This record gives sequence, structure tokens and C-alpha cells, in this order.
Amino acid sequence: MQLHQASWPEVEAYLKRSKGIVIPIGSTEQHGPNGLLGTDAICPEVIAKEAGDEAGFLVGPTFNVGSAQHHLAFPGSITLRPTTMIAAVNDWIDSLVRHGFTRIYFFNGHGGNIAPVNAAFSESYSAYSLDGEACPYQLKLENWFTLPGVQPLVRELFPEGEGGHATASEVSVTYYAYPEAQKQVEMSPKIAPTGPIRDAADYRRRFPDGRIGSDPSQATPEKGAKLVAQAKRAMIADVKAFFEGQA
Amino acid sequence: MQLHQASWPEVEAYLKRSKGIVIPIGSTEQHGPNGLLGTDAICPEVIAKEAGDEAGFLVGPTFNVGSAQHHLAFPGSITLRPTTMIAAVNDWIDSLVRHGFTRIYFFNGHGGNIAPVNAAFSESYSAYSLDGEACPYQLKLENWFTLPGVQPLVRELFPEGEGGHATASEVSVTYYAYPEAQKQVEMSPKIAPTGPIRDAADYRRRFPDGRIGSDPSQATPEKGAKLVAQAKRAMIADVKAFFEGQA
Amino acid sequence: MQLHQASWPEVEAYLKRSKGIVIPIGSTEQHGPNGLLGTDAICPEVIAKEAGDEAGFLVGPTFNVGSAQHHLAFPGSITLRPTTMIAAVNDWIDSLVRHGFTRIYFFNGHGGNIAPVNAAFSESYSAYSLDGEACPYQLKLENWFTLPGVQPLVRELFPEGEGGHATASEVSVTYYAYPEAQKQVEMSPKIAPTGPIRDAADYRRRFPDGRIGSDPSQATPEKGAKLVAQAKRAMIADVKAFFEGQA
Amino acid sequence: MQLHQASWPEVEAYLKRSKGIVIPIGSTEQHGPNGLLGTDAICPEVIAKEAGDEAGFLVGPTFNVGSAQHHLAFPGSITLRPTTMIAAVNDWIDSLVRHGFTRIYFFNGHGGNIAPVNAAFSESYSAYSLDGEACPYQLKLENWFTLPGVQPLVRELFPEGEGGHATASEVSVTYYAYPEAQKQVEMSPKIAPTGPIRDAADYRRRFPDGRIGSDPSQATPEKGAKLVAQAKRAMIADVKAFFEGQA
Amino acid sequence: MQLHQASWPEVEAYLKRSKGIVIPIGSTEQHGPNGLLGTDAICPEVIAKEAGDEAGFLVGPTFNVGSAQHHLAFPGSITLRPTTMIAAVNDWIDSLVRHGFTRIYFFNGHGGNIAPVNAAFSESYSAYSLDGEACPYQLKLENWFTLPGVQPLVRELFPEGEGGHATASEVSVTYYAYPEAQKQVEMSPKIAPTGPIRDAADYRRRFPDGRIGSDPSQATPEKGAKLVAQAKRAMIADVKAFFEGQA
Amino acid sequence: MQLHQASWPEVEAYLKRSKGIVIPIGSTEQHGPNGLLGTDAICPEVIAKEAGDEAGFLVGPTFNVGSAQHHLAFPGSITLRPTTMIAAVNDWIDSLVRHGFTRIYFFNGHGGNIAPVNAAFSESYSAYSLDGEACPYQLKLENWFTLPGVQPLVRELFPEGEGGHATASEVSVTYYAYPEAQKQVEMSPKIAPTGPIRDAADYRRRFPDGRIGSDPSQATPEKGAKLVAQAKRAMIADVKAFFEGQA
Ligand code: NI
Ligand code: NI
Ligand code: NI
Ligand code: NI
Ligand code: NI
Ligand code: NI
Repeated sequence: MQLHQASWPEVEAYLKRSKGIVIPIGSTEQHGPNGLLGTDAICPEVIAKEAGDEAGFLVGPTFNVGSAQHHLAFPGSITLRPTTMIAAVNDWIDSLVRHGFTRIYFFNGHGGNIAPVNAAFSESYSAYSLDGEACPYQLKLENWFTLPGVQPLVRELFPEGEGGHATASEVSVTYYAYPEAQKQVEMSPKIAPTGPIRDAADYRRRFPDGRIGSDPSQATPEKGAKLVAQAKRAMIADVKAFFEGQA
Repeated sequence: MQLHQASWPEVEAYLKRSKGIVIPIGSTEQHGPNGLLGTDAICPEVIAKEAGDEAGFLVGPTFNVGSAQHHLAFPGSITLRPTTMIAAVNDWIDSLVRHGFTRIYFFNGHGGNIAPVNAAFSESYSAYSLDGEACPYQLKLENWFTLPGVQPLVRELFPEGEGGHATASEVSVTYYAYPEAQKQVEMSPKIAPTGPIRDAADYRRRFPDGRIGSDPSQATPEKGAKLVAQAKRAMIADVKAFFEGQA
Repeated sequence: MQLHQASWPEVEAYLKRSKGIVIPIGSTEQHGPNGLLGTDAICPEVIAKEAGDEAGFLVGPTFNVGSAQHHLAFPGSITLRPTTMIAAVNDWIDSLVRHGFTRIYFFNGHGGNIAPVNAAFSESYSAYSLDGEACPYQLKLENWFTLPGVQPLVRELFPEGEGGHATASEVSVTYYAYPEAQKQVEMSPKIAPTGPIRDAADYRRRFPDGRIGSDPSQATPEKGAKLVAQAKRAMIADVKAFFEGQA
Repeated sequence: MQLHQASWPEVEAYLKRSKGIVIPIGSTEQHGPNGLLGTDAICPEVIAKEAGDEAGFLVGPTFNVGSAQHHLAFPGSITLRPTTMIAAVNDWIDSLVRHGFTRIYFFNGHGGNIAPVNAAFSESYSAYSLDGEACPYQLKLENWFTLPGVQPLVRELFPEGEGGHATASEVSVTYYAYPEAQKQVEMSPKIAPTGPIRDAADYRRRFPDGRIGSDPSQATPEKGAKLVAQAKRAMIADVKAFFEGQA
Repeated sequence: MQLHQASWPEVEAYLKRSKGIVIPIGSTEQHGPNGLLGTDAICPEVIAKEAGDEAGFLVGPTFNVGSAQHHLAFPGSITLRPTTMIAAVNDWIDSLVRHGFTRIYFFNGHGGNIAPVNAAFSESYSAYSLDGEACPYQLKLENWFTLPGVQPLVRELFPEGEGGHATASEVSVTYYAYPEAQKQVEMSPKIAPTGPIRDAADYRRRFPDGRIGSDPSQATPEKGAKLVAQAKRAMIADVKAFFEGQA
Repeated sequence: MQLHQASWPEVEAYLKRSKGIVIPIGSTEQHGPNGLLGTDAICPEVIAKEAGDEAGFLVGPTFNVGSAQHHLAFPGSITLRPTTMIAAVNDWIDSLVRHGFTRIYFFNGHGGNIAPVNAAFSESYSAYSLDGEACPYQLKLENWFTLPGVQPLVRELFPEGEGGHATASEVSVTYYAYPEAQKQVEMSPKIAPTGPIRDAADYRRRFPDGRIGSDPSQATPEKGAKLVAQAKRAMIADVKAFFEGQA
């Protein structure tokens, strides 16, 4: 069930059978010459939608702009400062907890979100820990690309040039989701350089077309379909275990 | 052009011909017995998409959770605290300005966003005004439902029971966008009560099923299509005037 | 009763007969060539004082610096950033609620305060709405210039050149309050230009002497007296209705 | 010159002869059985007004609600949290600096403001110190009651029972300013107890009627007049030295 | 007992016999040509350690970076902005209160910390005062150099050239603590100038080598030992009185 | 060189030969029945001190209270909220950058700090990335326990019972640093349980004596000495590479 297309009585009914919800969380940032700016939001969104439809769990709206300061030298990238992101994630959590949700599963598509979301969780728990009360809910962050079975499939599909940013796999997932948005671009060099991530100017100097270590010209909707299928399976298992876990 | 489905070189090319962008901004909140929780995000999103496709302007990601504290007594509603919203809107603005955008048009679907977004604009301008520098960009907030021609059409389509929240017109727009999400619900009373908006408990006491003054059982995809067509026309004119305006 | 001239036992006694308080809220900002920098604070302050004296309700200190970033290109203007204003308004609210006030009526003299004060109210209610508790108090924002009967009188007194900022009416009210502060200035042009409000540099470029659409050289203490009398009548009725309203 | 009763051209003219401004800063808090809630704002306001009129310097609006958490167990007291106060004081400073003021003299009536205002100054200077730039302005905090000659006069007027809060001298100053607001109250005990200041509940337990160490029934307008005259003289000298000091 | 070298069961046992803790609080900032950057942290730390060992009270970790913006023109100085310091001090307080500590004694080595720490205490108490609840704990700030008997000894040891910053006495205490860190530097002028403290650039212009009014070349470990012995005695008495005081 | 025991002229001289500094960063939190509350601060501090002495780089003061909300059910633990920690780390960075440091190496002893410190780095870079300027400095976070060669040695020293919190290795390092603080405690069970980390109440329920997966009764000063020697070697190499790296 998609929260955005549900009515409140439908959510009320859902809460009688489950206290769990999935929040896709991504980023709006450059993904190289042929990748979509929405890649990191689209990937968890499409996987979560298919998983939610199949397994019957509720999927909330996508947190679609995340922590992406390092991409700001490429047009179209949008970032939240980490402190803003912590505040926003906490407002989402507080709202959902208000309704009785006790398991909130943030399903992530962007490595840069990991630190601020974990900091946000810690901020959320801190209120209870400092008050000396037991926190009535549990928070989890999971990336689609680190779910069981996903990296093995990635290595099989892209023995070379998967890379670290604007990866062949994530671009494939977005081409599967939006085949009309595919872009044919010659990559030069074939495989992008690698290196550390710091500020935006440094990033653009190191990675002139935005890619890190990848050759996303290998991306196809078909490979995306396989990745989504595998991620969906693994995610359903992971979500179920989390929703059914004891406090 | 949808920013989320564009690559950064495409946005770079766009910036050579226009410095303007549209950001749909909505809310995730109850919309009565037959309305979608995503209504206020979906309406500006769908209108902006059609307008952008027709007129060629760039549409950014939807700011999909807004200021909705008063709806929190209804399951599924999510709010940002106003101060969080001000911070987040400013981060979006700062990111876009970084790329050279000088006209940012927030296209709104939710009355509760008006105060915090205007406060956010004032916060943004304050940095320049306190520094004694001219601000290099212009910000505009416009609601889809107050565009020229929209309310006359609404009165024609719904002579009675349009209402103030969970309106017949906004539900129609979402049914047009997602016909599969239509819900048949008997309204009782036919037309909901009206009154002031304060905190969530007070809201639920005054408006037991979430509607204010409306009978959204009149909503249909066909009426939604007419509304979208009218809003799209008016919005294109408004956006053009704003993008082409002198600083 | 003026809170600033009352003792705490007097306020304690007042609270036994009423839980309502009025807070005049204004701004410190340029008001054109012959208007006072304190105009927007003075207007609600003088009306509230007369109304409070007549009707017996308690009037708190004036919140005298508001949201005025757009006036900063004119010497003497002072602004709070909107986020500071939200914090300050909330501290005032929290203090008053601590004493048992359950109706807090912000009586406003400045259009630029409307967004941040409404955002502040929403921030205040959010604490309760997110906690799932009923908020024990009600907040209201009302402008002196939008009270019933005021604009009709304005149109009668100033058929032309009332304008939008540094209006003939508000300058009249301050001349009534402080006749010794009247300033004779030739207006040029007679009626000032109009346009949108953005940052301070843009404002000064559009409105070189600070006025928007007005000819405040028509202002007199006598007209101010009439305006105060009408606003006072209307405000007393509005305050009474609010103080006596059910939660 | 009173900023609130001046026009912007008048302030512009003033800035050609002086870059200094005085900001009265006080508090809204209980001042015992016969003292006014506005005492700490009224005292610096009235002294600054007379001094400004005599010596020709500009007096800004009164910062009338300060740091008064410890008085919240007495009806009518209003506080800013220290962090809010720091933000607000900085917004006032930034606004005034924007106009070219380089000497800002906060003229204080409340001991509880000393820590937050000094912290606010440090916050203001920090921006320059961290950037490695010289700060173009100077900030000063001075209390009316610690000006040269004031305490000797106080000891002469009130050999006993001046006290530490709701003092005989400050109540006298307010009675001089607003003789109509005098209150006849028998003090019991004649001289109030003394002790440390912590939170509001602790304060009310230690100081049941709000006074600390004082017998303010000795207050008269005449004594207030003498105190104002002495404070005015001393303040004019202090302000001149500050305004004329080299950076 | 040093908290950093204790285990949690040891602290649990301590809490059965005392609810008091000492937190040394200092600064990391230049202390002239022969003074250590850690001086203001080292002084309270070494005195508190000896006092805690002798009298058996618990000494927490040293809050070692404080409010030092004015020293930033000298390499090695580190500051917290006052608002950050307020937040951090409150987090320390909240954590300790969580464990049942009801007397928290901040033992200070730096004048610049006085305003922000007092503001932090007021922020802490504000939560209770605004809620109308009695605060269950007491906070105290005491400087080692203002303890009874310390200044008399200072005057005896340093009849001239004690000064206001990089004082002969504080440098002596650090030389006692870390004799290997002594530095032989000729002072020029022998006694440093005095003046007001503002931003960092102003400070360095007024006080070219960092000292204010002092000749710290008089510092020796032996004098430091005497100062520590006196401060320790006075501090033990002060801490005991505070820990044993009634709420 | 220890910054706390250096004078500012010594740091000035250091900056002529190196622009790099090491900041030990830890936590104050329970470390099981025989571990010290200061463990996570002591470990990086002692290794950094020895490494700095040997290799000649500057070591700043220890950031000794970090992100430890999950330990608050055990007496003596102190936490910063993540947002406070982000602010404080940024103030330290800004101060050091002010002096010309361009390589700041945070040397960490606590897993819970990783997310907030990385978020703090992102916050720091964001200012430059949003302004479109190249950031003039580089930040690095490295844990002592993940340096090359450390985990192999740990596995050799503690084939069983190293664990995840209150580890045998970290307790050994503190026993090496403070042999007088060793505590003999029987562990029961011998090896502690494992599980996820959430809020403090949940933590204490899962891990009753504070340990996770460890048997720290194996800790000895001798093993600590070996660990420090290995970590020191690896850290010197890592720091040198970072300090000498091109921007
Ligand atoms: Ni990605
Ligand atoms: Ni709506
Ligand atoms: Ni006005
Ligand atoms: Ni007073
Ligand atoms: Ni010192
Ligand atoms: Ni540890």
C-alpha cells in the first residue's frame, strides 16, 4: 500500500494489522553523463513499491532530497545540510510514532545519507535515553544495494565498471523504472577514476563527469529488472524480520 | 523537463536558455474519507508536470511533506515543524541558486504551507538584506487553486460542497492523476462542518472525518481533467511572466 | 490594564476573572518621508491601550521589532530573522501559558509579521499535535487594519493615496498618538509606486523613499483619532468573542 | 532622538554626525507586591530618553522582554530562553550595523540579562574572530544601577532595605515615570529575605512575595527623580566616551 | 575519584553516598609568550583532582574548550560559539541528571566562560520554570581564582604583574602541574598593557603578545604549588557546602 | 607536540613546517564491569600522544565527550546530542582553520562518533559547496582500532572474547595508560551477549553489565602496550600520508 494513495481510514485499518512502515529515502544529485538526477530516490522507491505491493506493507512518501553537498558542482543537485536532514527525519519519525507506528524502516538509495540518518536516529533515541524512558519504537536504515544477494548479482551483471557512484546497477534500476528516460552517452574514460569524497569543488576536479569508478553505459532496463527482483525479495524478508521483531 | 529524470548535462544545457525552475510543494495529510493522503503534493505535481512538458520549463522534485500539524490526529499525516520547513526550503533554494537559477517558483497545493514558505523566503532574503547586498534571485509562491480561472471553474463544477479542506476539486485532480486510487465513500454529513484550525486534537473534535465544509464524493477524474487543464494554462502564463520578469 | 504597569498580585487577580491577554505586535521599520520608524508598533499599542482601558482586558508589552528585512536599506529599520521571531513568539506564549492564560490575542500592525507569527503558532501547536495531547490554549492573530469597519473608514478618509506601506491611515494613527512627532514633508511623486516585495536592495530600487502606493502627507491626528475610535470598537468586540469562545 | 518617533531621513541625517545608538534593554517580570512588571524595562527607558533628549543621541526601541525564567512562578512574568535572547540581540545588532552604526550601547535594567547579553556579544564577535576579519563595530552593556554615583545616592536615599530585587530604588524610578501606577502595599516582612537564584519554583519558595532583601514601600517619585537625574548625568558621560572612543 | 578512570559500578556506588559531581571547565587559548594553551583547563583540572582525591568527591571529565573567540588571532586557540557551549553544557547536565546527580559544580578556569555558562544554567532551569515544575537539581559555577583566600595569596606572591590574562598565578599553577612544559621567555614590556576585550583582531592589536596586564615570567612551580594548596582547601569547603545544601 | 602544553609562539612556529593537526576524539561512557568510563577518549589520546612525540606532529586537546546516548542507563555515561556534537566539531574545525591548519585528522576511539563526525564534516564542507568555493582544508576521521595491523594483533592477543563494546583490546590500552586504574572483576557470563544498539533502556535490557560480546577480564597493561605500539606505527604512517597529501 502506498501511503500517498491511501486515505486515512485505510491507514487506520492497516495499523490494526501492522505497526510497521517503509520510508524510501534518497537524494537528488548528479549521476554522471547518462544517469538521472533522481536515481538515488527512484531506486528505493521502485523497489519499495513492488515489495509493498507484493508483501502488503505500507510505503510512505519518498524522502527525495538528502545529503549531497559534494555533488553541488554539477547542475541540478540539491542538498540538505546534515543538521536540516536530522531535523526533517526526526519530524517524519515523530509524526509516524504519533499514529502508533513502532517500526520505521528507512530504505535508502544513497551512501551520503548513512551518516546523517544514523545521527538522526541517535538524536531521536537521545530524547528517551536522557529522560530515562524506554523508547517505544525502533528505527532501521537499510540500503537497497547492500541487501543480501544484491552485490553478487551486480558482480555477475557488471564484472567491470560497476563503480562507486553513478553505478551501472543503479542506472539500470532507473532505466527499468523509466525506460523513456534512457540516455545514450559515450563514456570517456570508459571507467571513471576513483578517490576520496570531500567538498563539491574537489569532487568535480577529481571526477570531471561525476562518475566514480563506473561505466554506466552498460546499464539496461533488463538488468535493472533483475536487480529490482532480487532487491525486492531480499527487502521483503528484511522488512518482515524487522516488523515482527520484539522490542 | 523533469529534473529527476534529467541528467546533469541536460540541466546544464537548460540553464543556458532559462534560469527558472518550478518546485511543486505539498503536504502529506489526511484528506477525508475518500481523499488521498498525498493529495496536496499530487495536485501541484501533476499540473506542473503537464505544464512543464508543454511549455518546456524545468520541474524539480516535489517537496512532499509540509506543514500539517493540525492533521496529526488522523493516521498517515506527516508534518515538518515550521522551523524545519524553513531550513529545508532554504537548503533547496541555496542549492538551486548555486547552479545559477535566479527564478524559483514554488507551486503549492496546501494552504498550511503558505506561512512557513513565506517565512522561509523572508529568511532567505534576510541574509542579503542584512549584508547590504542585492539578492541575485527571486522567489515566488503560487497555489494551483488560486491561479486565474481556477475558482470560477470550481464553482461551475461544484456549486455546492467544494469546501475548504478535502475539497471536491482537489480530490478530483488526484482521481484524474491516479484513477485506480478512487474510493467510494458515503459522506456523513453530506457537507462537512466549518470552523477555525488550531492543534490536532481540536481539529479532530471539530471535523470528525477530516473534511472541512466539503462534499468530495462529487469528485471524478473527468472533473479533475478539466481542472488540470485550466490550472495548467494559467500556470504556464504565470511561470512565463515570472521567469521573464526583470530583477 | 497594562501589564507593564501592573504588579504580579494585580495580574493574579485578573486571572481569576479572565484567562485572556492581548499582545500588541509591530515592527521597527521605515515608513516613508514623514512616517515614524515605530509606526507598526505604535498603532496596535495605542489602540490596544484604549481598548484595554475601556473594556478591562489585560494588555501585555509590545513586541516591537518584527519581520522587516525588506526595509533594511532605509536607516533605522530593525528586523528579526523569521526563525528568531518564531522562537521569541513561542517564548512569550510559553511564559503566558505558564501563568494560566488560555487565550492569547496578538494584535498586529505589520503585514510582514503575518507569515512568521502564523508559523510561530503552528510551531507552538505542533508540540501538542505531535505528542497527541490537546493544546490547552488558543492563539489568534488580528491586524488592526483588517478589523471590521476600518477599511471602509479608511476609504472615506483617504479616497486616494492610502497605499500599501507608509499608508495615510497608519501615519494618522501615530500622529494622533504622538502629535509632537508630526513631520511636514512634500511627497514626490504625490502617490508612490507599487510592486512586489523582495529583499532590501530591490525594495529601495522600486520604492526610493520607502512608500508603496501611498500619499501619507494627508495624515492628520484628527483622522488618526477617528481610526483609533473605530478600530477600538471593533477590537473590543473581537477580543471579547475570542476570550469567551469555547476551546 | 527617539528612533521610534523619527523618520528614516532623520536617522540618515543623524548617522552623518554620529555612529552611536543606545538600546534600552530590560525585562518583564514580577517586582514584588508594589513594583511594576515592567520595572526593568521602564528604568533604562526613562533614563535613556531623558539623556538622549539632553545630549542628542539616538535611543532605539526598548528590548522589553529579557531573561527572567526565575520569576515565572509569579503571574505576568515573561522570559526569553537565553538562546532566543542571543539570537534576537544579534538580529538587532546586525540590523543596526547594516545602517552604519559602529557603537551600540545596550543600557540595561536587569541583572539576569548580563550573562545572555554578554554571550550575545561574544556570539556576534565570534563571526569576525573566526573569519579572521576585524569587527567594524563595538558593543557595550551598561546597567543604569552600576553607573558612577548611582549606588552612593541609593545608599543615601535608602540606608536600609534597598535589597537585590524589587529594590527601593528601581521602584522609585518607575513611580517617577508613572506616578499614576503607584501601589500602596504593606510589606511583610518589612525587609525581604535573601538567597541564591535558581529555577522559578525554588525562587517562589525562598522569596514568597517576589522581593529579595528589599523594602520597596520606601519608594517615591521624588526619590526616583533624583535617581534618574544622577543616572542621566553619569550615562551621558559614559555614552559620550563610548561613542567617541577609537576602535 | 576521577570519573574517567572509574567504572560504572564504581559510580553507581558513589551515587549511594553522594549526589554531587565536579566538572572542571576551562578553555584552550593563548596565554602569552610563556603560558600554555591549555592553562585554563589545566588549572581547575589539577586543583579538582587533588581536592577530589583528598575529600572523596567525584570529578568528571574536563570541559576543555570554552568561549575564547577573542584569542583567535593567536595560533592554537580554539573556541566554541556561545550557543554551541550552551548546548554542550546542557547535554552534560542532562546526562548527569539522568544518573541521579542533583548537585553539579562547574569548576572554572576562564573568565570568558562565565557568561555562557550562566546562560546555559538559565537555559537549563528555563525548561522547568516554563513547565511549572520544580527543578530537581542545582547548578553552581565557581572559579578557582575567586575562591576564598586565593587572591590574598596571589597578591602576596605577585605584588606586581599578576595581571588579567596570562596571569602570573595561573601560569604558576600549570608549571606546578607540568614542570617539563616551563618556557623561559623575556617579557617585553615587562608588564603588559590593559584594556577592554572585544573581537580577536582588536585583541591582538591591543595586546600584541597576548598578555593583559601581567608579567608571567615570575611564574614558578613552587608558587603554583602554594596556589593549588590554597585553592584546594577553599574548594573542598565550597564543594562540601554545595553538595550538602538543601534544595 | 601537545597543543595544551605549548605556547602560541610554539604553535606559530609549528605552522611554518606543517599545516596538520591531530584531534583525539572519544566518549565518556560505561565500558562494562572492569572498563573505565574514559576508555574511548583515553585510547586515542594515549596513542596520539606517543605518535605525536615520536613523529613530531601537533596533537590538540581531546574531544572527550561524544555521542553515547545508548549508554545512559549506566551511571557516569555522558552524551552530546548529535546536533550538539556537529556544532561543537564545526567550532573546533573553524577555529583551527582560522590559524591556517589545512589538514585536520580526527583520531577516534568510539564507533558511535562515526556518524555524527561524518555528518559534521559534511556540514563543514556544505558551506563551501553551497557557496561555490573550493574548501581550503581537508578533514579525516580514523579510528585507532581500524588502522592497518591493529585487528590482526587483536585477534592474536584475544582469539576469543574481543567483542564489540568494552572490548578486551580497548580495556588493555587503558590499563597500559593507567595501570593504577585496573579493576579485577569476574565476568558473568564469561562472554557477553551481542545484538543491535538502540536507546539506553533497550541497551541495558540486552546487555545487563554493559559489555557487548566481550570478555575484558583478559585485558592487561602488557597487551595494551603491544596494541599501542602497533596503532602508533600505523597511525604515524596514516597521518603523514594525510598531512602530505595534495588538496
Ligand atoms: Ni546513487
Ligand atoms: Ni488539500
Ligand atoms: Ni506599517
Ligand atoms: Ni528589577
Ligand atoms: Ni587564563
Ligand atoms: Ni569503547
